[in-house]
Amino acid sequence: MSALIAIDAMGGDFGPHLIVPACIASLVEFPSLHLVLVGQAPVLEELIALHPGVDRARLQVEHASEVIGMDERPTHALRGKPDASMRVMLELVRSGRAKACVSAGNTGALMALSLYVLKPLPGIDRPAMVTAVPTARGVCHLLDLGANVDCSAEQLYQFAVMGSVAAEAQGVVRPRVALLNVGTENIKGNQQVKLAASLLQQAQGLNYIGFVEGDGLYRGEADVVVCDGFVGNILLKSSEGLVSMISERIEALFNEGFVSRLAGAVALPLLKRLRGELAPARHNGASFLGLQGIVVKSHGAASGEGFQSAIRRAVIEVRENLPQRLHGRLEDLLL
Amino acid sequence: MSALIAIDAMGGDFGPHLIVPACIASLVEFPSLHLVLVGQAPVLEELIALHPGVDRARLQVEHASEVIGMDERPTHALRGKPDASMRVMLELVRSGRAKACVSAGNTGALMALSLYVLKPLPGIDRPAMVTAVPTARGVCHLLDLGANVDCSAEQLYQFAVMGSVAAEAQGVVRPRVALLNVGTENIKGNQQVKLAASLLQQAQGLNYIGFVEGDGLYRGEADVVVCDGFVGNILLKSSEGLVSMISERIEALFNEGFVSRLAGAVALPLLKRLRGELAPARHNGASFLGLQGIVVKSHGAASGEGFQSAIRRAVIEVRENLPQRLHGRLEDLLL
Repeated sequence: MSALIAIDAMGGDFGPHLIVPACIASLVEFPSLHLVLVGQAPVLEELIALHPGVDRARLQVEHASEVIGMDERPTHALRGKPDASMRVMLELVRSGRAKACVSAGNTGALMALSLYVLKPLPGIDRPAMVTAVPTARGVCHLLDLGANVDCSAEQLYQFAVMGSVAAEAQGVVRPRVALLNVGTENIKGNQQVKLAASLLQQAQGLNYIGFVEGDGLYRGEADVVVCDGFVGNILLKSSEGLVSMISERIEALFNEGFVSRLAGAVALPLLKRLRGELAPARHNGASFLGLQGIVVKSHGAASGEGFQSAIRRAVIEVRENLPQRLHGRLEDLLL
Repeated sequence: MSALIAIDAMGGDFGPHLIVPACIASLVEFPSLHLVLVGQAPVLEELIALHPGVDRARLQVEHASEVIGMDERPTHALRGKPDASMRVMLELVRSGRAKACVSAGNTGALMALSLYVLKPLPGIDRPAMVTAVPTARGVCHLLDLGANVDCSAEQLYQFAVMGSVAAEAQGVVRPRVALLNVGTENIKGNQQVKLAASLLQQAQGLNYIGFVEGDGLYRGEADVVVCDGFVGNILLKSSEGLVSMISERIEALFNEGFVSRLAGAVALPLLKRLRGELAPARHNGASFLGLQGIVVKSHGAASGEGFQSAIRRAVIEVRENLPQRLHGRLEDLLL
């Protein structure tokens, strides 16, 4: 499969100095991958020139004069910056020149611009961000992760449908779909969650299993867990912080005395791996589901390796033809 | 200090069979403590009789014929069960006979009944549940934990004030108070959080430091972290689930081979302790803040040790005279 993927080379906390080398590493990883780096051409050319071995036939540069700041208002990004790297990147997907795009930039701006440029799939109000979170029994596809801080019951319903289809695309058979809630009894939860539950109970062709609580998520009680973006973002980031805290405490313990150091030699590599797995947004990127095109969001503070993972995610979604799969299933499942 | 504390002996997943022995252990722990067990007297007397050494002058029984189910609607508990153990317990606090009360029963019912029987402090709409969560720098007082699934900006403001006073009562000087949010920039968050931030920015005498994200909470960036009960409940329970998952993975690793078992001998006791610390609601109980009386909620699935911790929390709040302290400070700080 030869795919051209557009990259917002200016986004993220570290910008092109991190993104350009990560892209070059991805070209090595996927021999048939083509990338187009969008951003300030002179800066990008200078950074590419540091890697004389790179196959320029597979690494194009598309100039974009403007950059959207990490804390810029989405409305301003939408109205005031027609030549922003993020926007030009999305236009490449819209026009069909690129099959997917990846940005580590401002999440709110990426959401607003994606919606404006690519448009949502029929029946979808707003896209959701999804990533795979590790559980005791495998992974759980958690959405929304922060794209929508206020969600209606109808939106939660749409997320459930999209999450189910996305999990199926990754090989899960009849994914168990649950709503995240503060209890598993019917009377629990806020208005949106209760209403979403009654919508999901009536949905044909969806394996809706009811409410799941925060601990149930990590016990692996569901394959797809649905919540609004405020809750999802806080769940994901607090989990990330908790794993860091535990790792640091255990590392400190393992530095006291010989026996402890020996124990540390065994435990620390595992902890390090777990830490990576448990920071999926930072390490793997997250997908925007529900758009007429593939958009992968890399964490603003992602490492080069993290940005490469986001590109990998985009490559897989191109291969799986995710938007088309979603479109096909949404017609049956949406209200 | 000689305090009489009322106990809902019928609440929780395990009821009096767990609660009676836990209460007897607490009487040993606090030699001047007096308890009144509220519930079905014949059942309670039978269970107490299994402990012939107990000082009955310090362990009274108050009969209550009804029990509120763990998934009963709060409105039903409020209207339909005038002689429920939980309600009779609260009446003992209202009348002044008991100085505090502890229940492991239905959280929603306890909230509704506490409000109805004890009334909120002046200026407080609804009480909040708070507990201390461990962080990289100590603990953080997190509220609300689930008593209020939908919160207005004014309620979040009230939680911030109450959390600050509660942290001061526990010895924190000028507690750093933060709002939990999906980003630290001004433009981030839902409407309630943004509005609560603007209220807190104007508050005199409160050390409001702005937004904190999920990972910042565990990094110890604030002493008091405020969120609505939906978010707080999910944060706490998902953290609990995550710690269990990590512990299990590490335990599994430490059972492979001799060196690993040696490492496990060092690491597992630490993990076990951490697991306890990181399930504060289950292990320590949580306080309802903002009532004209002390109400401690023990986790429904708490162990006997967990229920004892909840009693300990009540003893400390009686000693610190928490509602009076709150009342004094609220007058200055509330809008």
